[in-house]
Amino acid sequence: MDNFSFYNPTRIEFGKDKEQQIGAILAEHGIKKVLLTYGSERIKRDGLFATVSQSLAAHGISLVECGGIVSNPLLSKVREAIAQARDHQVDAVLSVGGGSVLDSSKAIAAGTRYEGDVWDLFIGKGEIASALPIFAILTLAATGSEMNAGAVVTNEVTKEKFAINSVHTFPRLSIVNPALMQTVSRDYLVYSAADIIAHAIEGYFTASMQPRLQSRLVESVIATVLETTEALLADPLDYDARAEFAWAATLALNGITYAGTSGFGYPNHMMEHSLSALFNVPHGAGLSVIMPAWMKWYQEHNPAQFTRFAQQLFGVATVQEGIAALEAWFDKIGTPTRLSQLGITAQQLPAIVDNVLGNARWFGLADTYDREVVSRILRLAL
Amino acid sequence: MDNFSFYNPTRIEFGKDKEQQIGAILAEHGIKKVLLTYGSERIKRDGLFATVSQSLAAHGISLVECGGIVSNPLLSKVREAIAQARDHQVDAVLSVGGGSVLDSSKAIAAGTRYEGDVWDLFIGKGEIASALPIFAILTLAATGSEMNAGAVVTNEVTKEKFAINSVHTFPRLSIVNPALMQTVSRDYLVYSAADIIAHAIEGYFTASMQPRLQSRLVESVIATVLETTEALLADPLDYDARAEFAWAATLALNGITYAGTSGFGYPNHMMEHSLSALFNVPHGAGLSVIMPAWMKWYQEHNPAQFTRFAQQLFGVATVQEGIAALEAWFDKIGTPTRLSQLGITAQQLPAIVDNVLGNARWFGLADTYDREVVSRILRLAL
Repeated sequence: MDNFSFYNPTRIEFGKDKEQQIGAILAEHGIKKVLLTYGSERIKRDGLFATVSQSLAAHGISLVECGGIVSNPLLSKVREAIAQARDHQVDAVLSVGGGSVLDSSKAIAAGTRYEGDVWDLFIGKGEIASALPIFAILTLAATGSEMNAGAVVTNEVTKEKFAINSVHTFPRLSIVNPALMQTVSRDYLVYSAADIIAHAIEGYFTASMQPRLQSRLVESVIATVLETTEALLADPLDYDARAEFAWAATLALNGITYAGTSGFGYPNHMMEHSLSALFNVPHGAGLSVIMPAWMKWYQEHNPAQFTRFAQQLFGVATVQEGIAALEAWFDKIGTPTRLSQLGITAQQLPAIVDNVLGNARWFGLADTYDREVVSRILRLAL
Repeated sequence: MDNFSFYNPTRIEFGKDKEQQIGAILAEHGIKKVLLTYGSERIKRDGLFATVSQSLAAHGISLVECGGIVSNPLLSKVREAIAQARDHQVDAVLSVGGGSVLDSSKAIAAGTRYEGDVWDLFIGKGEIASALPIFAILTLAATGSEMNAGAVVTNEVTKEKFAINSVHTFPRLSIVNPALMQTVSRDYLVYSAADIIAHAIEGYFTASMQPRLQSRLVESVIATVLETTEALLADPLDYDARAEFAWAATLALNGITYAGTSGFGYPNHMMEHSLSALFNVPHGAGLSVIMPAWMKWYQEHNPAQFTRFAQQLFGVATVQEGIAALEAWFDKIGTPTRLSQLGITAQQLPAIVDNVLGNARWFGLADTYDREVVSRILRLAL
């Protein structure tokens, strides 16, 4: 096993009605005024905004609204929110939404305490020395952002989708109530399933050393996603399936499944980020297209682990059968597996390749993923 | 899934040579003087004490020695160490040893900041409102104490083996270097295996609700223990097996495998604590005796989970075969499965039952575990 450091101080409050405690929780942390970040106005229609604002008011906490955060969240919006946070001198950010809102909130929290432009923190021009405290109420389970320090934002001018990660951007506390996720659309449910599986497999297949204990933990997460996605497609109100799906999403990216493995990269994410940045493809939909193609190319680098994957998760014998089983499962649940399903044609490949090569440097994968390799993988996804 | 709170702020530094960083780590935390707790003088013979004291000295940190902590650690020693900590005005406790040293260190850290007698904190007469910062260098993997807030100490006068648990008694940081565990005796290796399995199964079998995700995580831990124990018996210098064994021990009791399950108890621990308290039996040896007996009695309360256990971990079909397989595995690795192997006879059962019934109140299990039930289980272990 490789040497590692593990540290994850985020407190999770998981379960029914937990969002009603938000005012008390913020008061415990001495918070008086929050920037309340969110996406669409849906949280106002479905009552969540009312629940949260009443809970805050009951504890004398004021809020500044910052709505309109979109999926594949944008740098321009983050900059605007930082100005708002400074103007109103908020002392915390409260994210009410999914991974995009929470990722933006982390960037806002760090950017507010940084003197220069927040994008500096994404491109290595500046360092995150502190951040406003971050709190979250999660409404979509997929990205794992609720229990890690990472945040991904798209610079819409340069078409770069880059990340930050710092000990200061762990949420202090995240509320995960699976019941709040019951209204997630069928599309976003299956994209989320693909996203969680993508988080799980990157280290599983690409780590220079993958102990069996960690393989088992990853397989526990994936098996749960396979099972609960099907249960939720059959019955979106199945609370227990929703809860296991949500906790699997958190565990896939909170550090536990890959502590002790190292030397791994995020090649699927690297390539998908280009699809999102260029075509505003939903992240999970892009991943379900990239993954089978990438696997077909990558499998010869780690045949033992691909055989294990095939056997443990799909009960089939060979590498090829395992990859085919995952692709068939994506087809079955209705998340795309071909670029054509995203409206992307062979003519657009060169532009995607250029963008991926730009990402490759930041992902530390430029040595392996050159023009020829990236082109070959993308052609497998046509 | 049941509602839950998860919070575990302990930083883990895992891997080779990590103990050399202890001085720098303590300095980072502003520590100037530590109470260095340890067990036998072995750490002086094998060079660990020299490594640690040199690292501390290099960072201007002084130490007060507190050695001689025994397994099934004693209240009298904890009280003595609290007096030492106060006299020398240390500002942290540094535990260098296994679970007994670390559990004692937690009690010392909490007791030093508590005005009354430390045992009050174990019997609910006082509350842990703060504790000295706790740091650990682990030399034996078994108890999981390195990444949780619990501590078990034996009151040798009242023959009570009780626990504390508080947000203040999480270690700030634990160093887990599997190479430091290569000299653990064969006996303590197999007792540790039993201990880890016991931690894993308590919730797995007794939770009022056990989601499949959590079952899979528990099975990942147990499968790893089964595999790596055998590897280590064959070759104690197998670093990777030692590392997986150690990380499995941590994961078994850091909250991850049982978050979302509730209503569970620690009946095997409740009964074993009496064996340790009365006969000073090694904790893991007591557990490997209690578990098969308890399973034979308890299995009818949760046949589905016992069937799962049999199939997933031992590849056998029935509840009875699963329990027999675990017992046979304990026999195979050489940890006891019968009270007689611990030198305990039928004549001593009444005294054990009395002690267990005393524990039952503190374990919250008095309703189920009455005299008749406890006697029946213990007779199954004769």
